[in-house]
Amino acid sequence: MDKKGILIVVSGFSGAGKGTLMKKLLEDYSGYALSVSATTRAPREGELHGKDYYFISRDEFTGMIRDNRLYEYTEYQNNYYGTPRAYVDEMLASGKDVILEIEVMGAENIKKQFPDTVLVFVTPPSAEELRRRLLGRGSETPEKVRGRLMRALQEADYMDRYDYILVNDDIDACVKELHNLICTEHLRMSRRSELCGRMKRELESLNGGREQ
Amino acid sequence: MDKKGILIVVSGFSGAGKGTLMKKLLEDYSGYALSVSATTRAPREGELHGKDYYFISRDEFTGMIRDNRLYEYTEYQNNYYGTPRAYVDEMLASGKDVILEIEVMGAENIKKQFPDTVLVFVTPPSAEELRRRLLGRGSETPEKVRGRLMRALQEADYMDRYDYILVNDDIDACVKELHNLICTEHLRMSRRSELCGRMKRELESLNGGREQ
Repeated sequence: MDKKGILIVVSGFSGAGKGTLMKKLLEDYSGYALSVSATTRAPREGELHGKDYYFISRDEFTGMIRDNRLYEYTEYQNNYYGTPRAYVDEMLASGKDVILEIEVMGAENIKKQFPDTVLVFVTPPSAEELRRRLLGRGSETPEKVRGRLMRALQEADYMDRYDYILVNDDIDACVKELHNLICTEHLRMSRRSELCGRMKRELESLNGGREQ
Repeated sequence: MDKKGILIVVSGFSGAGKGTLMKKLLEDYSGYALSVSATTRAPREGELHGKDYYFISRDEFTGMIRDNRLYEYTEYQNNYYGTPRAYVDEMLASGKDVILEIEVMGAENIKKQFPDTVLVFVTPPSAEELRRRLLGRGSETPEKVRGRLMRALQEADYMDRYDYILVNDDIDACVKELHNLICTEHLRMSRRSELCGRMKRELESLNGGREQ
């Protein structure tokens, strides 16, 4: 069949619940591969190397840049974040849909390299709810929350470039929407040219050619 | 919210199972309105006026054309088929998703008038299966089957202009795909400009304006 892996970028405001969304998507459905980013920032409590991020040194990271082993990378608050090529290539080749959870600039870079990437932006239902969630984390100082809200305002300027907006109000509904969205993308004409070509050939043959 | 009615055109080969698909979609899910076409052809056995078609006379039909009361119409095998404006307008205004089951030329006409119409093409899994289904109807003479297969070949040339291709192999799966597809279309950026605008305004206000 036409089933080829699709590249899906998920971005969204810090506090939109992207992490939980990704986790639940992979728990509830099979066939997805989540790309793990590399970063030079220190792990937060509970974060695991190879699962949440590849936590690597600045030297290792600049080595990956130099060897062209990243699809995109960005520097944010003095730390590097990037998408290693190898895993993405391998998963797409195996027919899996690959999900990249990356920020807005990275999304642009990926879209340039893979024009049929599906760009999904996740937002809470309101800015007030975003602030509530950031404050509710407990781990964030008031300054950090202010910083994240300021960053959200900048990111909002990129929303228009995305293909879809998901509102993460109810997490279960949101996971389902994301899954349905990816299934629907597989039905798009642009991804079904093989099927169309085959139907045309079969119909021609059944009709004894065009000039009957 | 952003929930506005979407116009969805469903086309496909005669024998693809569009009728059953429409019927089950409306049975299984709420929020859809199926536009009923007007036609000058005679009702087939079991077909009801106002449900399957508005069966009207040639004079009535040409009157509707003259009074601009049709969004599109076409002549096929000496019969007119057309989409009355009134019902579509009313349903879209009430926020319903309106489905037009029309053929390929009509689909083109609708798309020109409503550029954000979603075009869906339904096909059986193979041309052989299409022929089997046409023969299985029993009501069709071998010549009619040949005619429909010839028509299918012509229609196949229009497939590329559609947004999505649905393969109607398992009807239940196909209904679900159509429903998910329409739900996903509501999440498209192009239909969520209100939501994006509101988030931007709220974030600006939370951040005390842009120039903080």
